[in-house]
Amino acid sequence: MDNYVLGIDYGTDSVRSILVNARDGVTLASEVYNYPRWKAGEYCDPTKNQYRQHPKDHLEGLTHTVKAVVQKSGLEKSQIKGLCVDTTGSSPLPVNKDGQALALSEKFSENPNAQMILWKDHTAIAEADEINHLARTWGGEDFTKYEGGIYSSEWFWAKILHIIREDPEVAEAAYSWMEHCDYLTYTLIGGTDPVAFKRSRCAAGHKALWHESWGGLPDAEFLEKLDPRLVKLKEQLYKETYTSDQAAGLLSKEWALKLDLDEGTPVAVGTFDAHAGAIGGEVEEGTLVKVMGTSTCDIMVSSYESLEEKTVKGICGQVDGSVIPGKIGLEAGQSAFGDVLAWFVKLLLKPVRNTINDSSLDEALKNQTIDLLEENLILTLSNEAEKISPESTQVLALDWINGRRTPDANQNLKGAIKGLDMGSDAAHVFKALVESICFGSKRIIERFRQEGVTIQQVIGLGGVAKKSTLVMQTLADVLDMPIKVAKSEQAPALGAAIYAATAAGIYPTVTGAIAAMGNGFDKVYYPNPANAKIYKAKYEEYLTFGDFIENQS
Amino acid sequence: MDNYVLGIDYGTDSVRSILVNARDGVTLASEVYNYPRWKAGEYCDPTKNQYRQHPKDHLEGLTHTVKAVVQKSGLEKSQIKGLCVDTTGSSPLPVNKDGQALALSEKFSENPNAQMILWKDHTAIAEADEINHLARTWGGEDFTKYEGGIYSSEWFWAKILHIIREDPEVAEAAYSWMEHCDYLTYTLIGGTDPVAFKRSRCAAGHKALWHESWGGLPDAEFLEKLDPRLVKLKEQLYKETYTSDQAAGLLSKEWALKLDLDEGTPVAVGTFDAHAGAIGGEVEEGTLVKVMGTSTCDIMVSSYESLEEKTVKGICGQVDGSVIPGKIGLEAGQSAFGDVLAWFVKLLLKPVRNTINDSSLDEALKNQTIDLLEENLILTLSNEAEKISPESTQVLALDWINGRRTPDANQNLKGAIKGLDMGSDAAHVFKALVESICFGSKRIIERFRQEGVTIQQVIGLGGVAKKSTLVMQTLADVLDMPIKVAKSEQAPALGAAIYAATAAGIYPTVTGAIAAMGNGFDKVYYPNPANAKIYKAKYEEYLTFGDFIENQS
Repeated sequence: MDNYVLGIDYGTDSVRSILVNARDGVTLASEVYNYPRWKAGEYCDPTKNQYRQHPKDHLEGLTHTVKAVVQKSGLEKSQIKGLCVDTTGSSPLPVNKDGQALALSEKFSENPNAQMILWKDHTAIAEADEINHLARTWGGEDFTKYEGGIYSSEWFWAKILHIIREDPEVAEAAYSWMEHCDYLTYTLIGGTDPVAFKRSRCAAGHKALWHESWGGLPDAEFLEKLDPRLVKLKEQLYKETYTSDQAAGLLSKEWALKLDLDEGTPVAVGTFDAHAGAIGGEVEEGTLVKVMGTSTCDIMVSSYESLEEKTVKGICGQVDGSVIPGKIGLEAGQSAFGDVLAWFVKLLLKPVRNTINDSSLDEALKNQTIDLLEENLILTLSNEAEKISPESTQVLALDWINGRRTPDANQNLKGAIKGLDMGSDAAHVFKALVESICFGSKRIIERFRQEGVTIQQVIGLGGVAKKSTLVMQTLADVLDMPIKVAKSEQAPALGAAIYAATAAGIYPTVTGAIAAMGNGFDKVYYPNPANAKIYKAKYEEYLTFGDFIENQS
Repeated sequence: MDNYVLGIDYGTDSVRSILVNARDGVTLASEVYNYPRWKAGEYCDPTKNQYRQHPKDHLEGLTHTVKAVVQKSGLEKSQIKGLCVDTTGSSPLPVNKDGQALALSEKFSENPNAQMILWKDHTAIAEADEINHLARTWGGEDFTKYEGGIYSSEWFWAKILHIIREDPEVAEAAYSWMEHCDYLTYTLIGGTDPVAFKRSRCAAGHKALWHESWGGLPDAEFLEKLDPRLVKLKEQLYKETYTSDQAAGLLSKEWALKLDLDEGTPVAVGTFDAHAGAIGGEVEEGTLVKVMGTSTCDIMVSSYESLEEKTVKGICGQVDGSVIPGKIGLEAGQSAFGDVLAWFVKLLLKPVRNTINDSSLDEALKNQTIDLLEENLILTLSNEAEKISPESTQVLALDWINGRRTPDANQNLKGAIKGLDMGSDAAHVFKALVESICFGSKRIIERFRQEGVTIQQVIGLGGVAKKSTLVMQTLADVLDMPIKVAKSEQAPALGAAIYAATAAGIYPTVTGAIAAMGNGFDKVYYPNPANAKIYKAKYEEYLTFGDFIENQS
């Protein structure tokens, strides 16, 4: 009888669980759950870039999806040997002394500051600036140096600092904070002590300034200068961190019952979706794996030898074992990718929806028309944009709708569009936005190369890679490189399943598990040489436009 | 029994005729006619900024509207003592030796190059550049100096040069060219010799480099360097020009029959809509009259003494008698005003309409929904934009969607938008576009002031002034000046009627006719001091953004 493992992948809008055969990586069953509170816009305020998620959305999704795949598979639960959770990050949430989410208590249930602070929440811009300033001026170690030299408002300490200053009640009640992947893993194993719990190396190293060379989290003296409360918090966080080839613990009785699994099943240390995605995308040295969804994460691995003592400037961090244990994981990424296109579609739709809703049309017809537009508008725009040749349009966009993550994180940056004339229509703008996110990708690759990291191939995965031929062909043209698309529909979940198989002892190493369980590739986009030439020139224009906007910010 | 006069005003999309009591300026009847061929997009190509209109649209509109107002009024036709036509401009069209439009012949009926070249057609950008270059380098008089020092692709010679180079058949057949206002006036009086005909001083002086000081149109030697065919054309155009307080001739028998008017009724010399609008808006020294429609024309008058020998840099011209005989008429303007907002609404609508049309919805429902959106979307956006406070948004736009007319005409410029983030929706962009057209207005006023022209008050008229409280309040805030709105719904047509009354001898001077027939003002927008302060800072940002875009063009 074959062994099976569960990969549980928490994205921005939904969670998906897959049940995978540990022998060959074939997916037996999968199930998706959209977060209902999130979909209704609860706890969020887009005008302030405030994005929060209630843990109930996550726990309900966990039960629903895991139960569903176990049921669909028809397997004996004893055949399911391990599980692993990956999530977005940095997405921390406050917990009490027992490690229970504050948001699950009656008192904090409706308080946005007690919810999980989603990766793309940018309410902590001022706090990130403060951390960066201090890191460069306080006279001690620059704790940001392994995170690209710039701390982001999207990350752990900035978010915590913002919340504890803004909300004294939450500050007081939060005994500790956990990254989303840690919180869910802790919940599954029935953890009782958040400080002793095996936290994710990936989350700690890339987002929380954890590094072995300075003994873990940053010095108390440094934290004290930010806020004395952080010194106390440091003691209530963690010292050691762990890679996802290890088990964080065993499935608790309570959750075994809820999920229809065996009590005691090994649960791997949690990790981030992008890093799990790189595993699912069969990352190896010299390969950039691009996880393309609402944002991108661009993941590479490097041997200790080839990176030596060097730090790579302006990326999101280099962390020992954050992807493959024994190698340095390198992370970069774009703050908005599919989100840039979704933003534009939403922009078009909002006044249309309001106009239709305010009209005297029949209610059923209103809903029918709005549903139609919500479903199909992006397709109409993609089709029209695909017909526009790159040399026929001068519309040029900057993709910083959600700031810029890498290179050189700067959340104050904003998006822009130029070259608009009476003949420019929505398809021209949409095409320019597609080009802009591809130019943003090129900027990252150029930085890696400038810093001496070799990139021989690009692998794409995630929703945009699978669905948008427009984006993928444009990306191949802009990068002037072929791009392979991972076959798996759910590479991060597959990556989590690969970690689960390793943590369960089915494979001795992650690399061995990838070799057995990888799903391969199903498509290659080759650059069109004529377009590549045009985009080479347009990229220069993009850089110049960006320099202007950045200097004005 | 009272005397009546007709004002006939040709705008971009429609012609309106009004029948006005010459004693008090009260409008007895009015009628509008939308150009059907234009509405269907015939002869146009927006992607090339090619905008042409068939003279049949204009002649059909003439008959329809004049007959309608005469009929509605119930007047004896003998009571109607004069008429005057104003049109957009520069909007030239080719005519044969008899002054008949080529487009009315079978051979040229469907040829876009034989149609009237609408003011906003930008196909002659290269030819305008050539004229500017030659004017500055040929060693003789700079013939552009009374037209602001920069010749525009929107104007007479650039357009003719473009067409005769592009279309040898039209070049060969065009004995002469006429501005739209001249062509219609010529038609009404049954003209037989286009060279002897009394052409409009306003059109010639502002657009065709005509100036008394160099004896009329530019030197043959200058024209020869552009194209030898222009030397011949010069002899087939005109030497003298006339102001609109004079009659160009008397209504022909043919057109008296067509229009239900008396043969022999005086027809005033034609003029441009903006200049007629300034008359309808009761222009006087120190007043800037802003005619606000798809574009703006900004009109002032100055005494010979106060302007002395000075030329005002970067505007569209200073012409003796182009507005009020005996004073210098000054013209400036924005290439796109209402058009900027209409462009955005069209941009939103197009993919929505395509998506709806491609769907399986019921045909009647499709049309109902699309009609609803076409009618109401701009209102939804205006209402939403009005609720956004200026300090709460960082979205900033450049209004050069259709190039920049003044100051310093540059049709190569394009529009741009910056400051976009995930919270920016269509209403934010719409508000930024509204602000951008107001910043464009401020730029013109600042130029007049830099050049020593005093501006004590601003008067607004035209569709946007009457209809958009959002635009008008923003304009008052941006200019930090009160803005009076002319009471007349059809100020240019009223201005034409005032010219008609003067040309018919009812009043000895235009100023006297304005005093009797002016309709006054119905609304004043006062600036909000808090907003004015915010916009002062935002205007600086607009200038900086504009400098960047201009330097990149």
